Amino acid sequence: MPKIRSTQKVKKSSKIGLAPGHLIFLGDAKSEDVCIQLMDYSANQLNVKEVKEDIKDLETCLSQETVSWIDISGLHDTHIIEETGKIFNIHSLTLEDILNTDQRPKVDFYDEYIYLVVKMLSYNEKENGIEYEQVSFILGKSYVISFQENKGDIFDPVRVRITSGKGRIRSSGADYLLYSLLDVIVDNYFLIMEKFGETIELYEEKLAERPDAKWLNEVYHLKREILFLRRSVWPIREVVTKLERDENPLLNEKTVIYLRDVYDHSIQVIESIEIYRDMLSGLLDLYLSSVSNRMNEVMKILTIIATIFIPLTFVVGIYGMNFENMPELKWKYGYYIIMAFMLVLGAGMFIAFKRRKWL
Amino acid sequence: MPKIRSTQKVKKSSKIGLAPGHLIFLGDAKSEDVCIQLMDYSANQLNVKEVKEDIKDLETCLSQETVSWIDISGLHDTHIIEETGKIFNIHSLTLEDILNTDQRPKVDFYDEYIYLVVKMLSYNEKENGIEYEQVSFILGKSYVISFQENKGDIFDPVRVRITSGKGRIRSSGADYLLYSLLDVIVDNYFLIMEKFGETIELYEEKLAERPDAKWLNEVYHLKREILFLRRSVWPIREVVTKLERDENPLLNEKTVIYLRDVYDHSIQVIESIEIYRDMLSGLLDLYLSSVSNRMNEVMKILTIIATIFIPLTFVVGIYGMNFENMPELKWKYGYYIIMAFMLVLGAGMFIAFKRRKWL
Amino acid sequence: MPKIRSTQKVKKSSKIGLAPGHLIFLGDAKSEDVCIQLMDYSANQLNVKEVKEDIKDLETCLSQETVSWIDISGLHDTHIIEETGKIFNIHSLTLEDILNTDQRPKVDFYDEYIYLVVKMLSYNEKENGIEYEQVSFILGKSYVISFQENKGDIFDPVRVRITSGKGRIRSSGADYLLYSLLDVIVDNYFLIMEKFGETIELYEEKLAERPDAKWLNEVYHLKREILFLRRSVWPIREVVTKLERDENPLLNEKTVIYLRDVYDHSIQVIESIEIYRDMLSGLLDLYLSSVSNRMNEVMKILTIIATIFIPLTFVVGIYGMNFENMPELKWKYGYYIIMAFMLVLGAGMFIAFKRRKWL
Amino acid sequence: MPKIRSTQKVKKSSKIGLAPGHLIFLGDAKSEDVCIQLMDYSANQLNVKEVKEDIKDLETCLSQETVSWIDISGLHDTHIIEETGKIFNIHSLTLEDILNTDQRPKVDFYDEYIYLVVKMLSYNEKENGIEYEQVSFILGKSYVISFQENKGDIFDPVRVRITSGKGRIRSSGADYLLYSLLDVIVDNYFLIMEKFGETIELYEEKLAERPDAKWLNEVYHLKREILFLRRSVWPIREVVTKLERDENPLLNEKTVIYLRDVYDHSIQVIESIEIYRDMLSGLLDLYLSSVSNRMNEVMKILTIIATIFIPLTFVVGIYGMNFENMPELKWKYGYYIIMAFMLVLGAGMFIAFKRRKWL
Amino acid sequence: MPKIRSTQKVKKSSKIGLAPGHLIFLGDAKSEDVCIQLMDYSANQLNVKEVKEDIKDLETCLSQETVSWIDISGLHDTHIIEETGKIFNIHSLTLEDILNTDQRPKVDFYDEYIYLVVKMLSYNEKENGIEYEQVSFILGKSYVISFQENKGDIFDPVRVRITSGKGRIRSSGADYLLYSLLDVIVDNYFLIMEKFGETIELYEEKLAERPDAKWLNEVYHLKREILFLRRSVWPIREVVTKLERDENPLLNEKTVIYLRDVYDHSIQVIESIEIYRDMLSGLLDLYLSSVSNRMNEVMKILTIIATIFIPLTFVVGIYGMNFENMPELKWKYGYYIIMAFMLVLGAGMFIAFKRRKWL
Repeated sequence: MPKIRSTQKVKKSSKIGLAPGHLIFLGDAKSEDVCIQLMDYSANQLNVKEVKEDIKDLETCLSQETVSWIDISGLHDTHIIEETGKIFNIHSLTLEDILNTDQRPKVDFYDEYIYLVVKMLSYNEKENGIEYEQVSFILGKSYVISFQENKGDIFDPVRVRITSGKGRIRSSGADYLLYSLLDVIVDNYFLIMEKFGETIELYEEKLAERPDAKWLNEVYHLKREILFLRRSVWPIREVVTKLERDENPLLNEKTVIYLRDVYDHSIQVIESIEIYRDMLSGLLDLYLSSVSNRMNEVMKILTIIATIFIPLTFVVGIYGMNFENMPELKWKYGYYIIMAFMLVLGAGMFIAFKRRKWL
Repeated sequence: MPKIRSTQKVKKSSKIGLAPGHLIFLGDAKSEDVCIQLMDYSANQLNVKEVKEDIKDLETCLSQETVSWIDISGLHDTHIIEETGKIFNIHSLTLEDILNTDQRPKVDFYDEYIYLVVKMLSYNEKENGIEYEQVSFILGKSYVISFQENKGDIFDPVRVRITSGKGRIRSSGADYLLYSLLDVIVDNYFLIMEKFGETIELYEEKLAERPDAKWLNEVYHLKREILFLRRSVWPIREVVTKLERDENPLLNEKTVIYLRDVYDHSIQVIESIEIYRDMLSGLLDLYLSSVSNRMNEVMKILTIIATIFIPLTFVVGIYGMNFENMPELKWKYGYYIIMAFMLVLGAGMFIAFKRRKWL
Repeated sequence: MPKIRSTQKVKKSSKIGLAPGHLIFLGDAKSEDVCIQLMDYSANQLNVKEVKEDIKDLETCLSQETVSWIDISGLHDTHIIEETGKIFNIHSLTLEDILNTDQRPKVDFYDEYIYLVVKMLSYNEKENGIEYEQVSFILGKSYVISFQENKGDIFDPVRVRITSGKGRIRSSGADYLLYSLLDVIVDNYFLIMEKFGETIELYEEKLAERPDAKWLNEVYHLKREILFLRRSVWPIREVVTKLERDENPLLNEKTVIYLRDVYDHSIQVIESIEIYRDMLSGLLDLYLSSVSNRMNEVMKILTIIATIFIPLTFVVGIYGMNFENMPELKWKYGYYIIMAFMLVLGAGMFIAFKRRKWL
Repeated sequence: MPKIRSTQKVKKSSKIGLAPGHLIFLGDAKSEDVCIQLMDYSANQLNVKEVKEDIKDLETCLSQETVSWIDISGLHDTHIIEETGKIFNIHSLTLEDILNTDQRPKVDFYDEYIYLVVKMLSYNEKENGIEYEQVSFILGKSYVISFQENKGDIFDPVRVRITSGKGRIRSSGADYLLYSLLDVIVDNYFLIMEKFGETIELYEEKLAERPDAKWLNEVYHLKREILFLRRSVWPIREVVTKLERDENPLLNEKTVIYLRDVYDHSIQVIESIEIYRDMLSGLLDLYLSSVSNRMNEVMKILTIIATIFIPLTFVVGIYGMNFENMPELKWKYGYYIIMAFMLVLGAGMFIAFKRRKWL
Repeated sequence: MPKIRSTQKVKKSSKIGLAPGHLIFLGDAKSEDVCIQLMDYSANQLNVKEVKEDIKDLETCLSQETVSWIDISGLHDTHIIEETGKIFNIHSLTLEDILNTDQRPKVDFYDEYIYLVVKMLSYNEKENGIEYEQVSFILGKSYVISFQENKGDIFDPVRVRITSGKGRIRSSGADYLLYSLLDVIVDNYFLIMEKFGETIELYEEKLAERPDAKWLNEVYHLKREILFLRRSVWPIREVVTKLERDENPLLNEKTVIYLRDVYDHSIQVIESIEIYRDMLSGLLDLYLSSVSNRMNEVMKILTIIATIFIPLTFVVGIYGMNFENMPELKWKYGYYIIMAFMLVLGAGMFIAFKRRKWL
């Protein structure tokens, strides 16, 4: 039985009353070590390295000759985030948002950088669940910093494109890198959508065959998952629109055309979500109608059996009475006559039911 | 039993992670050969030919003296699309969108051309289903390129108008050609709408006659189809509005008046869709109410039979008891008296039910 | 049984693929002869005549000294429409819209005239149905042309006002005439609204008395009618707003104040429609609840009869057994004792039910 | 049983086709005599008088030294309204709107005055109903004219404030007087809201105790009343917004701050209406669920009685058969054995039901 | 059983007709003494004191060298509010709003100050209810005045931050203080959200286990609470947006960035509310479906028992008849044959039901 369940849970209340800028990691610390991967590239050079303790080295990324992609996996070590923040001059509210993994997708424009937070969705085949992960991006003049808790393979295609040097990526700026990463994330939403589509179709088939109470619960949970999914995806639309419209010097005009493409895709995902929602509602109606149909059918059988046999039982009851003076009892064929009479009566009722289309 | 089913299915997930501009055909390759038909016309000349391998010949269309309509049927040969793209200087994202047949209807404005993608709907009488096909248009200064997978007869009326030279089409520009093609597509939506209207009316009649569980499933699927239809048609409105509002030099002021007409038609289609949605919901309610009405009726019969005969059966049960001292059993007319009593009792209950309007 | 049914049906698909400007009448040709009534008036002169074949005479209306109202009833003679179009220099799309009687209410601004199309609703007492008729208006500098298929009496009050010379109409321009005609049409909507209101109230009463399955179907059809009505009336609001806002030289500033009045009325009609929709939904809920209430009541009777008599019947069954050794059967007062026992048992159960408020 | 019912009914159709400015009173003529009360005041003078036939005296109000409040109760004497209209130079459409008591709340700006129409709601304890009354205001430079059919006590607090000279009212202009009157009207809405709130809470309690079909009808009517109430209150918001935004010289900047207060109150009333609507829907759901719960309970009893006794009755039926060769009948303790067997069977089934939590 | 109930009730009608500025406390007077706490601070000085009767001392706060936070708990002493109003030159409408504790969250801009009113929500563990408290803020150039009825501990974290001098608060202006207080309030909403989330999840589990009528009532009340909660939280969004957009000199540009953070949080709370609403609706559907499922199950048992035993009882009835000539009765194995026949009949029906999946 396919189940789609999300797993994320964040207790925001533990932060109440703290001063802004006070950094606490809100989320499940999943990966073990913080891992910082640095890709430094231009059209004709490429430099890949793991940064471990020498975070200060990242300062070289501020120079604007090459494009730097700093991919930080692991947010539970707030110290590293704080250090990074100091190097790239990131506002304390941004740092707070990076660590609070229950953020709503949004974009904030600061003087020196653009802060972007979206949800990365992946389907976990083993646990049959959707995994939500928050990914934050800082787009500076010549660098993109990506923050996430788990080391994700989702960005691998982008890494391959950078290392292989195919496509426009190596010859374009940091904004194009940001677009490429966003594009991969939004494209991954289609996978989830297809999974949902398949599950709903499966349910449709099953329900058409035979309504079962346990599916009901599944449909309820699927509806719930859709609600959460919607919350994660819906704001993406707004985020990309803001990026497009804000004539920010950090975003090249040519890249904006590509962002429009991401916008189109996010609209498509949102539309799919709305359609799935409507379909699930329809499915629920269908289920309930099927159940009431079956009940109807069962009731009809009961009614027919009862209405045919109750009068007959009354008749046999009559001749079971012990009155001394009951002439029929003494008739030679009384028994046969009464049996024939009951046969006619029963058959007549059966035919009447058939005619009224109750059977 | 009329069924309306759509047939299209596209797996978008197969494209995840590819660089933009990497051309893959997403859709069902239906036609066998790619076919390029070129119509080159002005007020007093007309030139129709099939372009097969000599795609380079299309370059002549760039000259602005005549209007050229390049109708490309067959998208599975990505090589041809790529070549065409080079000749007309089409952005790689546009080419990608042309090949991705699961595109949402939209319009994109580029410097040298306008890219437009809409859904062509046709009703397949044989399979009793709606066929969705994506049609892309490139409007340049003196040419319109139309892309679709299947060679469609839907554009035939426009072809006839061009060859016959009737109407304004021969003396107008490429923008008027685009309008004519769009107009034919939107007009075809009315056919689908009428089909839906007829199907719904048929269901209304059938349900009024006798509610049947199998219709329920049909109504559910019709609702689903409406959802998909809506997704294909709804954005048309936005597309035409954008075309109208954007004061693009490629669009003549006079043609904009005609686009307003397309806009009016698309609004009408959208309104019909909304009305059909509401009607289907109403139909479902009607069905469920009918079913519960019938069940009610059946229950009443059961109740009446049961409430009349259960007490009577109790009475005959009494006189079936074997007590030695039961004076009534020895009365001469005991049997007749008790039969008369039961007749009166039964009739009395029947009359009571009649009075309470239970029958 | 009051029924409200609309009767209009238009097959738009018959127009697919035709060039714009190709004139076909889409609708039911109802009246027999085309009838053109011309009213030519100014503050101190009035000239009424029927124009039959000498359409060219209408050219005199272009002179701006008097206000001309050309009322054309009968659209099936496309030739006359075409001729009129030539005289008043009307765009071919406008002519097409006039003949296509399934138009959505709208206003189009052209250089020389304003084109307005609305739905005229009238209640046909005989057929107990709403009749939709499309009325098109062309407002020029000194003339108003009204097009409709049937010769309508609805404009009679305006005709009387013109001939009697009462009110401002004779001393005002063509725009005031247009307002007067629009006002009469929108005022007529109130009649339909009252009819709906009465019908709904009648249903309310009937349903409160006794729910009946046949009303259910009626409510469904009423809901459907409301959907169509809404489609005809809703856009009026937009139409009048556009007229008000567009500072068109054809519309006098003073007339705009009057248009605001039409706007207020159309809002009121729209609100009534929304309220009736909600009331019908409520009515449906009420009906379904009533039905389930009645069923509940019936079920309770069944339950009580059954639960009282089933145990009693069991008891009499016991003493109907033929065991040789059943001491009670030989007791002198066994029969009376057991009858008394059953009386007590039955009464006890009856009281128990009463206490649990099941009766 | 608390019932809330509105009582107003207006036949608009009786006005169809009349020229604008033709004055007819649409509404129920309730008060007997038309009564015009004039309050003429400035910071240090106050003059109260009843104007009866000498309407011309009102001309003095046009002088701008004192603020005049002309309170006209009784609209059925159209002559008086017409006279007043002439004195204060009121547009014929405004006069029409004043007399048409089915007006939607709105504000119209004319050159010399602002016309405002709202609904005054009052709760009639005797008839247990909401009474809607239309109040029209004309705000001129130095005067406010209020029109209503019934002499209302609702304005008494304002009258007291004027006569006592407390507060800012005596030292402020006509616009502050208008605000004070509006404020009293909107404040009165809270009374109606509280009445609704109490009624809904009463229903909640009653339904929780025991669902009763008659409440259902009440809830339906309450929902209907809410619909009408909404229609009367909703536009107030828009009216006040327009007053605030339009920088009309008739409205002092300081008064606009007070209007914001009226706006806040009207928003609160609207929100309450929406909440009550939702609560009533919830109540209906609750009622239907309760009913189906009770039915469920009743059904369970029937099932249990039936499923326990039907098999037992079958058993006693067996031993009531008259076969000659039935050994059990001759056993000495056959009767006792079979009675014991049935006891065990019945108890077993009872326990099985208990275990399955059916009891 | 967890219950969430709000407790606030305010009778607004007691204020009808009063002049604006007439101060009456609308709410439950909860705390006993009015308590005014004054915190006067700058980067390097801090002064905390309780002001009791010497309200005039507050005048020192008007000097702009230090930031003053005047925290007034207790609104029932209208005299103190009036005095404060005079000192800080607060508009009478603002004072009225402060005392009317049923205010909708809003922001009003005055020349010298910004008036802000929001709802503070706290969860009362003892009474298992949400407590709504209205908090008003006056932001002046160098001071913030906060008004509330109960002395709240909710602001303690801010007090600690001020006294400890950690974070930016001591070195920032009054606007940053206002942000800090707002932030604490909005952060507290998350607590309520988590409580709701837990309660809903608990219900989900319980309902999945076994549907129980008493939960139904709880879900209804939870839905109702959500409605009230929504009314309190929804306007916050608008309030913060207005603060952000209005380029008020009282608000530093840097603080606006922090307000954006509050805005994000309020959006998140609103989204949660919407999701909980949808979940509760889903829960209700789930409950109703479960109930109808169980009823279905019960009905099936009844049907099976009845349909199996009713015919069998008829058979035994036949052989209980007292006809003299019934050959079967005299057969030696008649009894055994008929018993076997009934066994086969019963088993056959049972198997038939199994096959039709009714069991």
